[in-house]
Amino acid sequence: MKYSELFTRTSKNIPAEADSANARFLVQGGFVHRETAGVYSYLPLGLRVLRKIEQIIRVEVEMMGGQEILMPVLSPKENWVTTNRWDTFDVLFRLTGVQGKEYALGATHEEIVTPLVGDYIFSYKDLPIKVFQIQNKMRNELRAKSGILRGREFSMKDLYSFHANQEDLDVYYDFVKKSYLKIFKKLGFDSNITYITYASGGAFSKFSHEYQVLSDVGEDQIYVCEKCHVAVNHEILDEQKTCPECNNSNLVSKKGIEVGNIFKLGTKFSDAFGIKYADKDGVLKPVVMGCYGIGPSRIMGTLVEIFNDEKGIIWPKSIAPYQVHIVSIGDVAKDADKLYEKLMSEGIEVLYNDRDGRAGAKLNDADLIGIPLRLVISSRTLEKGSVEWKERSNNDAEEVKLDNVVELVKKYYLK
Amino acid sequence: MKYSELFTRTSKNIPAEADSANARFLVQGGFVHRETAGVYSYLPLGLRVLRKIEQIIRVEVEMMGGQEILMPVLSPKENWVTTNRWDTFDVLFRLTGVQGKEYALGATHEEIVTPLVGDYIFSYKDLPIKVFQIQNKMRNELRAKSGILRGREFSMKDLYSFHANQEDLDVYYDFVKKSYLKIFKKLGFDSNITYITYASGGAFSKFSHEYQVLSDVGEDQIYVCEKCHVAVNHEILDEQKTCPECNNSNLVSKKGIEVGNIFKLGTKFSDAFGIKYADKDGVLKPVVMGCYGIGPSRIMGTLVEIFNDEKGIIWPKSIAPYQVHIVSIGDVAKDADKLYEKLMSEGIEVLYNDRDGRAGAKLNDADLIGIPLRLVISSRTLEKGSVEWKERSNNDAEEVKLDNVVELVKKYYLK
Repeated sequence: MKYSELFTRTSKNIPAEADSANARFLVQGGFVHRETAGVYSYLPLGLRVLRKIEQIIRVEVEMMGGQEILMPVLSPKENWVTTNRWDTFDVLFRLTGVQGKEYALGATHEEIVTPLVGDYIFSYKDLPIKVFQIQNKMRNELRAKSGILRGREFSMKDLYSFHANQEDLDVYYDFVKKSYLKIFKKLGFDSNITYITYASGGAFSKFSHEYQVLSDVGEDQIYVCEKCHVAVNHEILDEQKTCPECNNSNLVSKKGIEVGNIFKLGTKFSDAFGIKYADKDGVLKPVVMGCYGIGPSRIMGTLVEIFNDEKGIIWPKSIAPYQVHIVSIGDVAKDADKLYEKLMSEGIEVLYNDRDGRAGAKLNDADLIGIPLRLVISSRTLEKGSVEWKERSNNDAEEVKLDNVVELVKKYYLK
Repeated sequence: MKYSELFTRTSKNIPAEADSANARFLVQGGFVHRETAGVYSYLPLGLRVLRKIEQIIRVEVEMMGGQEILMPVLSPKENWVTTNRWDTFDVLFRLTGVQGKEYALGATHEEIVTPLVGDYIFSYKDLPIKVFQIQNKMRNELRAKSGILRGREFSMKDLYSFHANQEDLDVYYDFVKKSYLKIFKKLGFDSNITYITYASGGAFSKFSHEYQVLSDVGEDQIYVCEKCHVAVNHEILDEQKTCPECNNSNLVSKKGIEVGNIFKLGTKFSDAFGIKYADKDGVLKPVVMGCYGIGPSRIMGTLVEIFNDEKGIIWPKSIAPYQVHIVSIGDVAKDADKLYEKLMSEGIEVLYNDRDGRAGAKLNDADLIGIPLRLVISSRTLEKGSVEWKERSNNDAEEVKLDNVVELVKKYYLK
């Protein structure tokens, strides 16, 4: 993409509402546009990042047996009355349409997915079933804050599993628990800073599990067992004062951002909707459920919180909107165009800043936007048949020969 | 995809609410699940169809210069007050969140896109700009009907263009007008049945244009000029009694489904939000806008209305959820598996009905689901080293040699 053709541009002004790095840099870099508190539009650069995050998650969840569906935002009141959550779900947006028809806006989708999948469950042979969607959720949050970390509208991948019994759920739950760690690693979070965190369970299990990424802007207080690399959410610290895995009582207080959670639902929702299956003997039994969430937009915000410096964002390779950011300095359009075409023809994703402008401003833009690899081409580098190679995560630049650039870029992205 | 692994199944029961072919076959085939009037979930087969439609549109709109963004469902009241549409937009869902904050649910996005793009318009050099999104819209329709044709929540591709003057808008508008016909053709609508239809314009132009596909279940009455292959919507028949292109007064009444529309907005929205640019002389002038819509979910419903018979759906090749439907009959799992693997390894999309079941039921399912090409493999065909080849749109079956199947499938899909 030629930057001259992109309609967005960077801004030098720190937004008034910027209470966090992601709220600041994503707006200044032209990734998102704030519409009102907790509600953002995704601009071309931001949408590319969001789609990459979603695609990494989608591929992994499909490998976990998930079948993709898409449920609506509009959710009929009846379904929430059936589960007794119409009046009790605290962040539910409620509205009334024509003829007094009442709806909730989907804040979570147990109320839709349970009867939906239930329509296809007859016997034990139909189980287990795992379905997921990637869809925008709405929550009437008292305080929207931290940019896209806690929004009133946000993207969510929600996976639901349906089992014949608790044992089958337990096995799948443990499988998801491990698989999620792999997903977070692929999304760019080092396993050093990602903690499976024990949180409150509910009627059907002692604990649920959150995935917390350490960050000073995190809303969650967690207590880390440095031996087991797990944590306990402060919400359950009264009942769980030690590490649930090794009983270590020396837990260290840290702040985390919750990037995912998994929960055993048991028969809470299948009971409410009367979803049963016939076992081998023809006896009707309730279906046992689990649910597993990861929020792609929150992942995007968290990545910015973790990977930034005073100049801007430092995207992980797997998530960056483009792989290479070409910056042309001075009157080198012909050679810069050629480099751009060459990289593109090799399937490399390139943002090419071909706009007029001072070198300093263009380099600042590249730092703000945060693509992992910057290539500067100028008359000075061209004299030597080379370009300046600078990694966003590294302070040192070096010169590489134009002839070797494609090969080196490919090698860099395989690392 | 092995049908045994898909959680959905077909149903013999015609849904009580089925007032149209799409409401019937999409539910019976396991493409969609009705949640409440006008609100549907997309099941794996249906989501594949929807994504294919969206992708065909996306590629074409990108070639028309559109840059993809994603705007929210939640839309602050202030923006609708600014354009005087808060009280007047008849199908707007309105709701109140915490602290009395009022929102509309996006029924269209001029109220969001105008100030958003406006933030990046400074001078004539920034224009034109074209942005689009593919996103779910909500409309508080008095009567939701005809399955996914007129829903309360539905998918929409909306493109908006921003120009320095009316002439530039006019040129782009004409370009879109032609390009849209190409899109509808790629989506499977024969140009014979697709009519550019003159409809009411508004303050800034005499006409807008709709794309109407002839169908007896269409809600729109249109008057067709058979010479020019254009039509006039009945809504403007009082003022436009003849063909606007050749003045032919012999217009033929037909029923159509509106699958797209394009509209010159002029400065209506840029005036409301005060979006101006500096021309070459530094004089501030208002931005001139156009908008261009195609509804992917409505396209999906319309395709079913046009392409069906008493047995089920007949998907066009470009849209079908899978390219080949393998039906195994009898005890031929080993050979059927091999055929499935072979087609898959060639990049062919296959639905493989490996479920137990009577031959008749499995063949009925294939007819209902409507994949263009069915391959039946049985001990009878295997004796001859062949499979039965049957196109959904053709009553005759033939036998083809197993060794030639891959080549023939590829040839069929290139036709």
